[in-house]
Amino acid sequence: MTASLSAPLQPIGEHPPPPILAAVPTPSSDPVAVIGASGALGFGLALRLARAGVPVAIGSRDGQRAEEACERARQIVSDGIFSAHENAGAADACDTVILSVPFRNQSETLANLKHALSPGQLLIDATVPLAAAVSGKATRMLGVWQGSAAQQALEMVPDGVRVVSALHTISAASLADLEHPLEQDVLVCGDSRADKQEAAHLIERIDGLRCVDCGKLEMARTTEALTALLISVNARYKIHAGIRLTSLPDRLWE
Amino acid sequence: MTASLSAPLQPIGEHPPPPILAAVPTPSSDPVAVIGASGALGFGLALRLARAGVPVAIGSRDGQRAEEACERARQIVSDGIFSAHENAGAADACDTVILSVPFRNQSETLANLKHALSPGQLLIDATVPLAAAVSGKATRMLGVWQGSAAQQALEMVPDGVRVVSALHTISAASLADLEHPLEQDVLVCGDSRADKQEAAHLIERIDGLRCVDCGKLEMARTTEALTALLISVNARYKIHAGIRLTSLPDRLWE
Repeated sequence: MTASLSAPLQPIGEHPPPPILAAVPTPSSDPVAVIGASGALGFGLALRLARAGVPVAIGSRDGQRAEEACERARQIVSDGIFSAHENAGAADACDTVILSVPFRNQSETLANLKHALSPGQLLIDATVPLAAAVSGKATRMLGVWQGSAAQQALEMVPDGVRVVSALHTISAASLADLEHPLEQDVLVCGDSRADKQEAAHLIERIDGLRCVDCGKLEMARTTEALTALLISVNARYKIHAGIRLTSLPDRLWE
Repeated sequence: MTASLSAPLQPIGEHPPPPILAAVPTPSSDPVAVIGASGALGFGLALRLARAGVPVAIGSRDGQRAEEACERARQIVSDGIFSAHENAGAADACDTVILSVPFRNQSETLANLKHALSPGQLLIDATVPLAAAVSGKATRMLGVWQGSAAQQALEMVPDGVRVVSALHTISAASLADLEHPLEQDVLVCGDSRADKQEAAHLIERIDGLRCVDCGKLEMARTTEALTALLISVNARYKIHAGIRLTSLPDRLWE
């Protein structure tokens, strides 16, 4: 990223900043970029984060789609702080970047973000290599040479960008339905405990989500695969299931 | 299997049948074989099933170890119905066979059971291809050519033996500690809904276990991998975690 974090988010296009930005003088936390926020999971995350007081930079490949998603988000979370950007603009504007794109776009998206990402930023990868990316079943996974989509992300980001894997088991539909109590776990993987903790502190601002440290980034191949498993369970039982680990202690992070 | 199911289980060796067999005239269900019951997971399953009134044929590669496990089990579940067998004898004596052996022994064990298993039997495979099988980490998985240990089992059993995959996420320590409330889910995979349901009805006799249909047998590659994930979580938090799926309906099986 090149912009100062303390600078207000700069939305794309000709539109004036939305009045809500003026109405909330001090954001209660640093802004977070959601890359792919016009997609279902990204949009749900943007809503939930904004409702928790996190300013959200809505990123999309297409500026117009970012604007539309931003407008929809504002209608749902009226006191949320949103700004619309093309993906690189969103990533450039925030210390923390959530990558929530279909697997078929992950590699291209990260290549396009190469100059927007810079050392020290935290990338939370939520990509799932479902076979649906190659017109296969959403209950099957693709093998990723690096081991997982998260490890592919780590390979592609500029040196010094910290990568954590999370959020694969949270249903987009449940996130977007703000009345739906989440009450489930987020399985977090990464090679640095501090980075995982930073991601956990952000994610746990969303009501009902508890983050569990599941190990190194290589474990993402299993947490990513849980998406396919949950899609299978959801189809069978007509639900939006989540994951809960049992017998955990009360305190999972410092 | 060749023996009639209505015949009493025939323990190996010279020992007379234990008095407990005489004390319980009518078993409340058909006997179940646990192959590898001298191992930690198999032993815990044997205890829990016996406590639920299921007669258990304790199988081990070594007859003497089966006897010892049987004796230990009787001391813990004094009203349980146990019998000791070499693996083939246990498999031969029961309609339902739980395979609970380390991955390094799965193939050899199934080869040895070839003549003990016969069409119509239900094999519940609990094998996990942990990298520990080749002196690697227990938080890493081996790639199995067929896709999973369960699919390898399906390939190896005689035609007509039905294979269901289950029980990978239940901690052996929690099973063996009969005071420990389980309150967790068992993720069940298999190509036949009826076979999964039959396995679920057996497993759910164990207090606190709920079986969830997770799809076809090929999904076992993910449910098996959850063992490695839980081992990672357990080591970090010094617990014995289990899995619970959220938002499921009350009724999961007919």
